[in-house]
Amino acid sequence: MAEYILPLERLIEQFRKLPGIGKKTAVRLAFAVLDFTNEEAETFADAVRGAKELVRTCSVCQNISDGDICHICGDSERDHSVICVVEDAKAVMSLEKVKEYDGVYHVLHGAISPMEGIGPDKLRIRELIARLSDGTVDEIIIATNPTVEGEATAMYLTKLIKPLGVKVSRLAYGIPVGGELEYADEVTLMRAIEGRRTM
Amino acid sequence: MAEYILPLERLIEQFRKLPGIGKKTAVRLAFAVLDFTNEEAETFADAVRGAKELVRTCSVCQNISDGDICHICGDSERDHSVICVVEDAKAVMSLEKVKEYDGVYHVLHGAISPMEGIGPDKLRIRELIARLSDGTVDEIIIATNPTVEGEATAMYLTKLIKPLGVKVSRLAYGIPVGGELEYADEVTLMRAIEGRRTM
Repeated sequence: MAEYILPLERLIEQFRKLPGIGKKTAVRLAFAVLDFTNEEAETFADAVRGAKELVRTCSVCQNISDGDICHICGDSERDHSVICVVEDAKAVMSLEKVKEYDGVYHVLHGAISPMEGIGPDKLRIRELIARLSDGTVDEIIIATNPTVEGEATAMYLTKLIKPLGVKVSRLAYGIPVGGELEYADEVTLMRAIEGRRTM
Repeated sequence: MAEYILPLERLIEQFRKLPGIGKKTAVRLAFAVLDFTNEEAETFADAVRGAKELVRTCSVCQNISDGDICHICGDSERDHSVICVVEDAKAVMSLEKVKEYDGVYHVLHGAISPMEGIGPDKLRIRELIARLSDGTVDEIIIATNPTVEGEATAMYLTKLIKPLGVKVSRLAYGIPVGGELEYADEVTLMRAIEGRRTM
């Protein structure tokens, strides 16, 4: 016999699939859902489904978006001649919070990692190169994470883009080495943008 | 403009409604859901909905159940002459893990708390008294939490049940005072059952 009744066991299992949620927390969260009203549970379930159904990737920058083109790419006030290249959508949000940067972005959806079998072809690099073809882009700021994979990706992109005559820079090392962009505080991120170096 | 696109913002909000989930964790969990496949998101949403739809309360002991009568009340091997009274379903599960107790349960769904406006009428006390009417019950073990509310509930139940000629006992103070039954380790819970005292 299972430790909990089946519908509860199923919900606990689902919560355990989320990052950083262990057995005890999953049980606590599942019981909290039992205390929801039917309407609240319905709203929760809809939000989970909706996040998958309604969130797509911007056809230009590959960032998550609720339309074909995200609000950053669609904003004519922003400087479309500078593209900041990041690993994921969370990094875009971290950088946007600083309000220092007014260019646009490109989300790679990962970093090169031979260990995990992620080669350049698995990233949205083709889409980035396509954006450089019409000559409107002057600078690429590489803002991959300061990890082995992020650095490898930065090196790869530099070699690929420099021959195209586009300036390539890298975020300054204000970001703690080995850390993740997502967890950097806003001042650190601001320094990193100001002190970016040409590669 | 919202910090995140709407479907994501909605999901983050939902996660924040869960106990112990702050803004940062909610964001992390919501992004994890975005990385789910459509099928995984659907399964998650179904589990949330299912937990509310399929989990009801046992018509005898008021514990959560997937049928009209829970598996403990329906088990003829258990001693139906002893009822352990607890505040919530989590306490039943904690006590069941010990495997020391072979009686049945009664879940009050709370404890008396004048501060929060919870009087005896808001708890499943009427259902407990009804179970004592046919004379099959010899002992009531009160296992409410060792908090002010739990103690008040224990006192109230003792005064109510003792005149009916049923033995009333209380879990021994092996449980740390001020703590919650749910977090007690199994040995502590076992000692508490063994050392229960007549009230």
